[in-house]
Amino acid sequence: MIILGLDPGYATIGFGVIDKTAGSISAVDYGVITTPPNETIAVRLAMIDDAMTSLMNKFRPECVSVEELFFNTNITTGIKVAHARGVILLNAIKACGRLYEYTPLQIKQALTGNGRAAKHQVQYMVKTVLRLADVPKPDDAADALAAAICHANMSGATRREIR
Amino acid sequence: MIILGLDPGYATIGFGVIDKTAGSISAVDYGVITTPPNETIAVRLAMIDDAMTSLMNKFRPECVSVEELFFNTNITTGIKVAHARGVILLNAIKACGRLYEYTPLQIKQALTGNGRAAKHQVQYMVKTVLRLADVPKPDDAADALAAAICHANMSGATRREIR
Repeated sequence: MIILGLDPGYATIGFGVIDKTAGSISAVDYGVITTPPNETIAVRLAMIDDAMTSLMNKFRPECVSVEELFFNTNITTGIKVAHARGVILLNAIKACGRLYEYTPLQIKQALTGNGRAAKHQVQYMVKTVLRLADVPKPDDAADALAAAICHANMSGATRREIR
Repeated sequence: MIILGLDPGYATIGFGVIDKTAGSISAVDYGVITTPPNETIAVRLAMIDDAMTSLMNKFRPECVSVEELFFNTNITTGIKVAHARGVILLNAIKACGRLYEYTPLQIKQALTGNGRAAKHQVQYMVKTVLRLADVPKPDDAADALAAAICHANMSGATRREIR
């Protein structure tokens, strides 16, 4: 089963594609989509839309796992991220129809057994679970892979379909 | 010049299409796009995407005017509205490329001369400017028409292209 993990943003979107079989989980591809800061938010949304379409066409995931959005201090940035996340969810639902979201705590718990684990510990587990030579870079790509692995490790009842 | 005004939301999106000529402004059409509350946010985003595509194809506006998004008390609702607004802006940029946004204060100022005018006063001015028999219903449609009229009345320097 191909699972696409996404770390939403409007400047940088991490993606991580994994293949879950009966016995193991392996990395298919990972990386980031970026948009230039000098463009308008609308143009950047169109760029994200194009890149997401390519991603969905290339990997044809059976389900998509996305980190839940929390607003921290900066509401203006938060609104832009939420705009981008809307475009990302739209592409996911059009292409595969199975969307799941997990809180950062759930992702950390699924990867390390500790919902309050440090970032480097989660990254180390991404590397280990996927048997990679190094920690995936940049961080957004590692976060996206972590979201995908989290979903792969969830059983029916604990899976959180996006409402 | 055809101007499309939009009042973004995820349950109800108001739209108002006006035609600005040298001498006057007239209403072409207005109404609302709605999505059912029992559907997932992703399905509702897909519905908004479809409805926005139809709207852009039908009226082919030269520019789109949208009220700026503010977050009030409910962050969860705000995130959903921002998701929907991302999909709305994406459709607008793909179809016409000229996007403008105005604060509620600017819209009230443009319609009534008072940035703190009451809602019914703005609605009365929408009816008057467009020479309609009644105040447009529902409120979301009237708000969308107000955003369109606000843009029509702005001269070059005061127009606010979305960044």
